[in-house]
Amino acid sequence: MDAISVIRAKRDREELTGEQIDWIIDAYTRGTVADEQMSALAMAVYLNGMTRTEISRWTAAMIASGERMDFTALPRPTADKHSTGGVGDKITLPLAPLVAACGAAVPQLSGRGLGHTGGTLDKLESIPGWRASLTNPEMMDVLRDAGSVICAAGDGLAPADKRLYALRDVTGTVESLPLIASSIMSKKIAEGTGALVLDVKAGSGAFMKNTDDARELATTMVELGRDHGVRTVALLTDMNTPLGLTAGNALEVRESVEVLAGGGPADVVELTVALAREMLDAAGLTDADPAKALADGSAMDVWRRMVTAQGGDADAELPRARERHVVTAPSSGVLTRLDAYAVGLAAWRLGAGRARKEDPVQAGAGVQLHARVGDPVTAGAPLLTLHTDTPETFANAEAALTNAIDVTASATYEPTPLILDRIE
Amino acid sequence: MDAISVIRAKRDREELTGEQIDWIIDAYTRGTVADEQMSALAMAVYLNGMTRTEISRWTAAMIASGERMDFTALPRPTADKHSTGGVGDKITLPLAPLVAACGAAVPQLSGRGLGHTGGTLDKLESIPGWRASLTNPEMMDVLRDAGSVICAAGDGLAPADKRLYALRDVTGTVESLPLIASSIMSKKIAEGTGALVLDVKAGSGAFMKNTDDARELATTMVELGRDHGVRTVALLTDMNTPLGLTAGNALEVRESVEVLAGGGPADVVELTVALAREMLDAAGLTDADPAKALADGSAMDVWRRMVTAQGGDADAELPRARERHVVTAPSSGVLTRLDAYAVGLAAWRLGAGRARKEDPVQAGAGVQLHARVGDPVTAGAPLLTLHTDTPETFANAEAALTNAIDVTASATYEPTPLILDRIE
Repeated sequence: MDAISVIRAKRDREELTGEQIDWIIDAYTRGTVADEQMSALAMAVYLNGMTRTEISRWTAAMIASGERMDFTALPRPTADKHSTGGVGDKITLPLAPLVAACGAAVPQLSGRGLGHTGGTLDKLESIPGWRASLTNPEMMDVLRDAGSVICAAGDGLAPADKRLYALRDVTGTVESLPLIASSIMSKKIAEGTGALVLDVKAGSGAFMKNTDDARELATTMVELGRDHGVRTVALLTDMNTPLGLTAGNALEVRESVEVLAGGGPADVVELTVALAREMLDAAGLTDADPAKALADGSAMDVWRRMVTAQGGDADAELPRARERHVVTAPSSGVLTRLDAYAVGLAAWRLGAGRARKEDPVQAGAGVQLHARVGDPVTAGAPLLTLHTDTPETFANAEAALTNAIDVTASATYEPTPLILDRIE
Repeated sequence: MDAISVIRAKRDREELTGEQIDWIIDAYTRGTVADEQMSALAMAVYLNGMTRTEISRWTAAMIASGERMDFTALPRPTADKHSTGGVGDKITLPLAPLVAACGAAVPQLSGRGLGHTGGTLDKLESIPGWRASLTNPEMMDVLRDAGSVICAAGDGLAPADKRLYALRDVTGTVESLPLIASSIMSKKIAEGTGALVLDVKAGSGAFMKNTDDARELATTMVELGRDHGVRTVALLTDMNTPLGLTAGNALEVRESVEVLAGGGPADVVELTVALAREMLDAAGLTDADPAKALADGSAMDVWRRMVTAQGGDADAELPRARERHVVTAPSSGVLTRLDAYAVGLAAWRLGAGRARKEDPVQAGAGVQLHARVGDPVTAGAPLLTLHTDTPETFANAEAALTNAIDVTASATYEPTPLILDRIE
């Protein structure tokens, strides 16, 4: 077996054998297959695709490249959630404690942001003292104590995926369905959850711009979960406009706490409760009532325990950006479009995101919305507030919003549903 | 400009702009574009192709990555030849001195063999004392003194191609028409020849297995030569059976000397004289008579001066392998097929070629043919002799020849012409 014959097979549109896949993932993890060979293979996969059989074996090989966690010693069933990423997508923050409050254990291993979508760990790190990196025993302690934990995945989980993900990022091979599906699912399956709910986003602010691609990704991932004995369900959700009224780290934490306090924007609440319902059903907790757990403060109690257990000060004032700039509505009427990608890009340019994985992020930077799609707006009234510590970025952030906002004088506005489909 | 945007453009089947091509070749030469990025781009080029405009610019950018030699100070017109490689293809050895004997200067920069086709420098190195590596002034001295020189290309010529060629070799991206054409032509144009004749081979022992692909490659290269002011002609030649009666280093030198002495196999003589005719015509020496220069010994005189000027002993006994093994004809009749690739592979396994570019080659190893396609053979009579210093390779070499030989009892054998087409 050698790298060139595997690359050639995929290049020539052959189906890779299980032995070829196992060999190349293992050899890549050990470093005997070089980055330049793996990137050629990744491009061949990007352009020629993989069959379901290949994707399943590829995923299994990436899981086998590292350790697989085991939560079966916990007294509660485990449930986990993964979102393919969107603008203003802070759902993990209220969701993990909510599901824990309803009786499941939620071991939520998360990532940092790259590009226009924010990362869950970046958001939580705006809480003074909060730590993303835990050892496996620390993670288990938080999980036993609070019921949920949100932390960085250790280096031991799917190391082949870690290396391949970084490689894809610099070689133009990110947006490949087989590679995305196997990357997500190898990490999630290695995490050892019993039940998994996927939030697969479609729209301008998502990886997948159109619903058909998102549905295919969702179906592939649900099947991969089933292949590996993880009860997996996917919701297909709209990401043409931001979720909630904030995009940015501390801004989103603040909004999440509002939701945990029983308030918050309706769409964030709707999606949080819907995903909680799916996670609880998949974990076998069909009698639990997530809406009640938000209303009666029990989800907030778990949040506070979880934040505190990870070194965070749950009562601390969250950082605010030093400078603000208001963008006003261009005319009066109904806001019919507020483009998710543009808002994400603006937040990123303001300092909420990073261009390279070594870069720091600003805790206070981001975009605050004063209206949502479907709301009436008045010419000259505040529509968005831009937040940053680096006011020289305002011009670039505003430029990102050019052509991102539509206001229609007499619109008969037909709202798009937030949850487009359910796949199991 | 950045690598990812260039990779994405080709990945998405866009035509690369001149600026993109110039940028990526320059950045790759300087090392700011990484190997893993270039290999992803090479795979995208392999699968999505390049237009003629892109190939021409790519070639120009590779030429511009290094120095361009200049032979205009020589009193004679320059002519060069390039073969895309085949089994038993020793034509450069008699051809360069023959064309020099007819009045042109022949600066023949050559390579080493990799895989089943032998390398011109490996063959010449079987001559005791002969040196492949010359400085530019040494090369000019040999050229002035002998009229022809065959030596290794210096590191200063098309360094982008050198790096890319080594990368393609390990990433399954060798057999791409745009990459092959630009690689060959960037080197040949940088060498500064005024006229260039291409021997583009088609058949089992060639890069291009079928004639249509070979014709497309030839046409592309002829156009690239013209784009850069080099008078370029291509002959399309058959490579389904080996050229001549030998494949292997010293074996092929011995056969080449026979041709220079006015003898040798008819096909080697035919192709040598045809290519000489083309080179002389392209150099404007239309009155020269290459057949006469072979017959009257003047080509042999140039050969001896050239070998001597490069440190070789033109009178030395050439190395012979320590062990021999005879393969006999399986039946009586007419030899209707003797597969070039199989013979090349057998010679390679006997030690004539190398698996990695660091490996040494055996001077004496190879395959000697006792009959050519179209000849009558008798059951049990010697058909091939295998030569090696490592007799443990005989079994593997013989295995390569399984199904490579057809003898037909009452064949009305119709010979394939050696020269299939001429493209200018």
